[in-house]
Amino acid sequence: MQINNQEYRSVWFEHGIVKLIDQNCLPHNFIIREFATYLELATAIRDMAVRGAPAIGVAAAFGMALAALSAPAEKFRDYLRSAKDELLASRPTAVDLSIGVYTVYESTIKFIPDLAHARNVAVLAANEFANRCVAECLDIGNNGAELIEDGFRILTHCNAGALATVDHGTALSVIRAAHKQGKNIFVYIDETRPRLQGSRLTAFELEQEGIPHAIITDAAAGFYFWKKEIDLVITGADRICLNGDIANKIGTYEKAITAHAHKVPFYVAAPISTFDFSCMKGDDIPIEIRDENEIKCFGDQCVANPGSSALNPAFDITPAKYITGIITPTGIFTPQESAQKVQS
Amino acid sequence: MQINNQEYRSVWFEHGIVKLIDQNCLPHNFIIREFATYLELATAIRDMAVRGAPAIGVAAAFGMALAALSAPAEKFRDYLRSAKDELLASRPTAVDLSIGVYTVYESTIKFIPDLAHARNVAVLAANEFANRCVAECLDIGNNGAELIEDGFRILTHCNAGALATVDHGTALSVIRAAHKQGKNIFVYIDETRPRLQGSRLTAFELEQEGIPHAIITDAAAGFYFWKKEIDLVITGADRICLNGDIANKIGTYEKAITAHAHKVPFYVAAPISTFDFSCMKGDDIPIEIRDENEIKCFGDQCVANPGSSALNPAFDITPAKYITGIITPTGIFTPQESAQKVQS
Repeated sequence: MQINNQEYRSVWFEHGIVKLIDQNCLPHNFIIREFATYLELATAIRDMAVRGAPAIGVAAAFGMALAALSAPAEKFRDYLRSAKDELLASRPTAVDLSIGVYTVYESTIKFIPDLAHARNVAVLAANEFANRCVAECLDIGNNGAELIEDGFRILTHCNAGALATVDHGTALSVIRAAHKQGKNIFVYIDETRPRLQGSRLTAFELEQEGIPHAIITDAAAGFYFWKKEIDLVITGADRICLNGDIANKIGTYEKAITAHAHKVPFYVAAPISTFDFSCMKGDDIPIEIRDENEIKCFGDQCVANPGSSALNPAFDITPAKYITGIITPTGIFTPQESAQKVQS
Repeated sequence: MQINNQEYRSVWFEHGIVKLIDQNCLPHNFIIREFATYLELATAIRDMAVRGAPAIGVAAAFGMALAALSAPAEKFRDYLRSAKDELLASRPTAVDLSIGVYTVYESTIKFIPDLAHARNVAVLAANEFANRCVAECLDIGNNGAELIEDGFRILTHCNAGALATVDHGTALSVIRAAHKQGKNIFVYIDETRPRLQGSRLTAFELEQEGIPHAIITDAAAGFYFWKKEIDLVITGADRICLNGDIANKIGTYEKAITAHAHKVPFYVAAPISTFDFSCMKGDDIPIEIRDENEIKCFGDQCVANPGSSALNPAFDITPAKYITGIITPTGIFTPQESAQKVQS
């Protein structure tokens, strides 16, 4: 992605160190943080310095590479297993995280007891996982752009951008590709409470790319549907089940229902790592409940009634019946057939 | 309403002065502001120190009383007409405001040239308008409480409470009445971006009354519908049309669509002053567009991407087809029949 006219990925591995753009500091401060241990990286995932299902999958894969590099020879396997468990526990909803962790873990332990080789393989496997994510996102953009007609007004929720996916994005890859094709588009961005990934991150990415857009509050989209000013909705996903149900950022479900009521197509864009081939349906997805102060406070300032509690589910489930199609690296499929199609 | 164990109204007239609880300062500071001129009061309405359709109707009625008291004898009618225009322009969407203004204006000008009498009538008419609002809200509560069953989990949006209506509330009057009847209820409160009337004001009122509740982000309700944890939705309204369409706080429409998709009843509670008998349908209601910085900033702090614009419609339209019933002081009616029923 372009940031201040330079090319960046959201997370990468360089000389034995993981580097990432701290997404909690954007858009006001552009800070690259460095991690030498998997434990620090797990904390950064938990605190959402890196977020977005594909990006945390890649960050966790790099975390496993860090673990392999620093694992003591006599406890190599145990150390790697602890790192795996720690990283898996950092966030529960996105399946990409466990795919990233297991991809590196399983590649690496095959080469025990040749630890030098195992360590090399860990780094190679993590980098390959990151590169595959980038390539898949590019394919998602090219596949999805055909859905966008000249003049379309598009709604997106949260940040399914380059920041969320190492590069290009999922939903935003489609939007970038349509823009690059010269189509005249306009993007409504849900601010995405409580952490404002829409107004902070998606708005930042679209401004950097020169794509026309405006921020709205999360429940304002209904008004623009009612005015017939939204032609298509596109979001990312944190997990896609075998039956086509998806988990995504809290608020996605209401957008899907509202789009359905207005007969506006609702698309989900995701790489292969977001498919959970062991998960039958949405009810089986664990939903992360985060701290109530994400809702009640801005920085140090409490904005809500101090004596009241808040409930803060970070994701919701959108059933397949509300999803027009899933845009994948290998094509656009109905939600019901998508898991089978991307496997074949 | 009870605030710190004392009885208050949200706005009242006392010795030639209008007093009101500054709703921009709640819940952190409980401040009563005083207004000696209609111009200051119009500014307070515009800045939302007083908000909520019925409350701004009453505040505007009191503003007309202030105007009558200070109008110079030689220009009494012109002065009153200027005050009327100024107050009408302060906020466009709630019809209660114009009802309040015209109620006092028309009562008063009838008694020109007996200005002493006209001034008395202005104050009496404004107080009567306020008292009628309070009595109607009490009736709304008693009528609506029958809809609430023991154990119900209720969703509300924005603040349709005592603060929004002089006393008792509309939606919250129903909730208060059910609670007083000893029913065990739980209230989900949408925080209501951008100005957080839910997490600041509704949460404050419910805490003061000891009614169990939790704050959620605006688009999180879908998740609780999906979990079958919402039994009924109840909101206020800023304007009700002849065909039963309503205007209410931005975000209401998505709640109504989502409730409908889940076959959960969606009720609107409102006094007679919220009915616009000259407005055929929702498309005819003017929607106030407020400053983008309400979305982009918290206090002095810009939280969104600085280079992006935000669109900030303050209200949306919910068509009658998504409304189960309208709870009025005279009964609960279908939206289509409600305007006719409250007039008869």
